[in-house]
Amino acid sequence: MINERTIKSDKIYQGKIINLRVDTVELPDKKYSKREIVEHPGGVAILPITKDNKIIMVKQYRKSVEEKLLEIPAGKLEIGEEPKECAKRELLEETGYTSENIEYLFKFYTSPGFSNEVISLFIAKNLEKGEARPDEDEYIEIKEYEIEELLEMIKNGEIKDAKTIIAILYIKNSLNM
Amino acid sequence: MINERTIKSDKIYQGKIINLRVDTVELPDKKYSKREIVEHPGGVAILPITKDNKIIMVKQYRKSVEEKLLEIPAGKLEIGEEPKECAKRELLEETGYTSENIEYLFKFYTSPGFSNEVISLFIAKNLEKGEARPDEDEYIEIKEYEIEELLEMIKNGEIKDAKTIIAILYIKNSLNM
Repeated sequence: MINERTIKSDKIYQGKIINLRVDTVELPDKKYSKREIVEHPGGVAILPITKDNKIIMVKQYRKSVEEKLLEIPAGKLEIGEEPKECAKRELLEETGYTSENIEYLFKFYTSPGFSNEVISLFIAKNLEKGEARPDEDEYIEIKEYEIEELLEMIKNGEIKDAKTIIAILYIKNSLNM
Repeated sequence: MINERTIKSDKIYQGKIINLRVDTVELPDKKYSKREIVEHPGGVAILPITKDNKIIMVKQYRKSVEEKLLEIPAGKLEIGEEPKECAKRELLEETGYTSENIEYLFKFYTSPGFSNEVISLFIAKNLEKGEARPDEDEYIEIKEYEIEELLEMIKNGEIKDAKTIIAILYIKNSLNM
């Protein structure tokens, strides 16, 4: 089993959402290398489907890329929070919808080359209208789309967010909508 | 247009692959908030399909998540490098295959909540066998899979890498293999 033994681990930054550390590792050939690692608490993403088979999407400004992105609802885990509880909470906060039918699909690492961020993906059906309650630093627009529109928006580059692309392609594959 | 005006930008770390900065932004309600941003040079990922419709995958240890992951070939852009050139180079380095038929599909942000990393996805057909030349700190195993096997491995959680999930679901959708 090829592995990387940690020789040294330097904490560079402890932040609000992420931490940064730099590990020195020993490779199988005994040489050393550096690994820059962004620690993230992990999060959830939810694909919300209305009773008439529309997908609820959120649009928000993302400072990291200096543009507004169209995404499925998502958010990071609070300390001690179960992913499914987090999915329920974020669905309500961001879209105003609730669901008694939230099902776990699978999870994935967003960028394992430098981060341990893992997102658990859920699908939420039988949506009921409630009232959105975004975090105080979130400004979110909510929109409904047909799945075929969203597939077209992946192909033409309008949808650019990895977790959102995964959810849309997955549901297209499994439901054959 | 809802936006976030940058009030201050603090460089925290300048690394080998990533940089970290913390921006102070002014929100539409005039309150301030912090944005932790990981700067990444961007990269490419390549879905390599053999003449008999098998997918070439690479398996490597990822220090960030402390496990070996099965992924499509990928790598980061060198300074001034075009994504398509990078795709050709990484395909050869990691798998030993070359292709005269590399086609751009689309690009996506891996984790826009905290990083500007963008990956351009390519598909490589008509593969010709060459010789793999991994970077000196890369230890890579190469394996071939049927697309149906890979789909099953997404559903059961064996494939955990976002860019890889995107590529497999996309090709399943568009080729109807």
